[in-house]
Amino acid sequence: MTTIEPLLKLFTTYLKENKLDRSPEELYAPVNYIMDLGGKRMRPIMLLMAYELFDQQIEEALPAAYAVELFHNFSLVHDDIMDEAPLRRGKPTVHNQFGLNNGILSGDVMLIYVYDYLMKIKQTKNLTEIISLFNETAIRVCEGQQMDMNFETREMVRIEEYIQMISYKTAALLAGGMKIGALIADAEKSDADLIYEFAWNIGIAFQLQDDILDTYGDPEKFGKKVGGDIVQNKKTYLVLKAMEIADPDTAAQLVDLLRKPTTNENEKILGVKGIFDKYNIRQEAEKLKEIYQSKAFEALKAINVETSKKLPLENIAKDLLSREV
Amino acid sequence: MTTIEPLLKLFTTYLKENKLDRSPEELYAPVNYIMDLGGKRMRPIMLLMAYELFDQQIEEALPAAYAVELFHNFSLVHDDIMDEAPLRRGKPTVHNQFGLNNGILSGDVMLIYVYDYLMKIKQTKNLTEIISLFNETAIRVCEGQQMDMNFETREMVRIEEYIQMISYKTAALLAGGMKIGALIADAEKSDADLIYEFAWNIGIAFQLQDDILDTYGDPEKFGKKVGGDIVQNKKTYLVLKAMEIADPDTAAQLVDLLRKPTTNENEKILGVKGIFDKYNIRQEAEKLKEIYQSKAFEALKAINVETSKKLPLENIAKDLLSREV
Repeated sequence: MTTIEPLLKLFTTYLKENKLDRSPEELYAPVNYIMDLGGKRMRPIMLLMAYELFDQQIEEALPAAYAVELFHNFSLVHDDIMDEAPLRRGKPTVHNQFGLNNGILSGDVMLIYVYDYLMKIKQTKNLTEIISLFNETAIRVCEGQQMDMNFETREMVRIEEYIQMISYKTAALLAGGMKIGALIADAEKSDADLIYEFAWNIGIAFQLQDDILDTYGDPEKFGKKVGGDIVQNKKTYLVLKAMEIADPDTAAQLVDLLRKPTTNENEKILGVKGIFDKYNIRQEAEKLKEIYQSKAFEALKAINVETSKKLPLENIAKDLLSREV
Repeated sequence: MTTIEPLLKLFTTYLKENKLDRSPEELYAPVNYIMDLGGKRMRPIMLLMAYELFDQQIEEALPAAYAVELFHNFSLVHDDIMDEAPLRRGKPTVHNQFGLNNGILSGDVMLIYVYDYLMKIKQTKNLTEIISLFNETAIRVCEGQQMDMNFETREMVRIEEYIQMISYKTAALLAGGMKIGALIADAEKSDADLIYEFAWNIGIAFQLQDDILDTYGDPEKFGKKVGGDIVQNKKTYLVLKAMEIADPDTAAQLVDLLRKPTTNENEKILGVKGIFDKYNIRQEAEKLKEIYQSKAFEALKAINVETSKKLPLENIAKDLLSREV
């Protein structure tokens, strides 16, 4: 049973040892730039924890952990281009720092290296299943990103569509990664499936938490501007739920507020928040988050290993879901 | 021994049967658009021919042939964005037809499906080697594209650097694909390596042919504008060779001609061609092309199968290298 710190240290060392130091430099500098920007390394850490539920040769799972982190960063590089994002983790995004073409091409080469690292997995018995699962996962991430882009220009989005989108865009990679961790440890099929279910539901709860924090986060603690989603007219769960339960007049008012060009951002945020508060939207979101959280912990409970071994996963999930930033 | 037509028919049928008809439609429409634009299907056909040198169950090689064609088209989609190309095969490029974001994301999902199809290969004995070879190949294609972009802004490019760039950008995928065909047929390692050498050299000769045709093609037969490379100041083999052997004054004149804003395209083309002709650059390029061509046919000759079986490959290579469009 290992907690976060030693796993993070192990993973960070592996990252350093596996830096893509190749030429042409213009291709690989953006890769190293984004990989060095940091982040919580949540996906690789949780993949390693999933492995540790079933086996102890943790080094066996490092190439897969690296692959998942590389894929996550590839998707950030390309998504930031699509979203025209100027900043990532407080630094210029890759395409802003290195140009559009290098953003595209460096992202591409990262995606190829993802498979290069998956092929380093020594657990050959399950390798075909692992690669297939990864492919399915990666396809879902792309489909989720496409749905997200589609929603921007659509008038209405149903809540179940929104949940599917965040499942694909956020939960799939966590779930796929953790199941891969279990498969490398050659876990029972039923346990590997339970790990997937755990992570899938944690991923959805995590994204709902994100939606809540963006509007209700403590400005002192929250890294980004509170209310950013509102300013950008994002169709988050909060907006969609408000649209669903508000009376027609208030719903029309909300649409109007969101459409309006932002001459005064704070006024817009306050207006939208006022409607959310009138309908207890924050509580609605918390309630839904707790439903997914409960499903996740039930799945974790059902995994056929000693309860004590599950503690690191339980703790990291609880930390993630009660975070304030 | 099969010639092109039945293989092309087989492949085209497989393409149709394996159309990526999934949702969201916005993600997959660009994939089907580019895959339906056609092209010579040279890479998959030659992969199938490589397989047929060593075995007869041609269906076994279809998923790999599909993967290689999908990868080639993925690279076209992303390269066209980087090159800001408006047209591809006479039709709007993907990003012009569907927008930048869909060009990026649809390209990404194609790259993932490449691996999905590679995993359909039933030859499990060599599968790890096949995927590793494919990764190496795909990485080279990206590195070649990066080198190509680098060369645009560089003052001088050495001929050997140019050859490396076209090897990576053009020859690698043909060579990797054909070796994969041989590996699926479980060919001897030495024969698989010879197929790789054959295709690598054919690929370079093919690109040199491309450079020659772009300047010396018959305007009646050539699909694109003859002289396009000159108008775009591309550092082709012709330019680099002329820079190498021209006297300093003529070299300076060439640099000047290429740099000059194109007020009169035809004047520019004639000026550059005049210099090429003065130094027999076309003949120099033909000579180099023939060197690579000979290397290719020597490798083919050395492959340990009946000579008659090699005829389709010999014929397709000769056709490709004597083409006028």
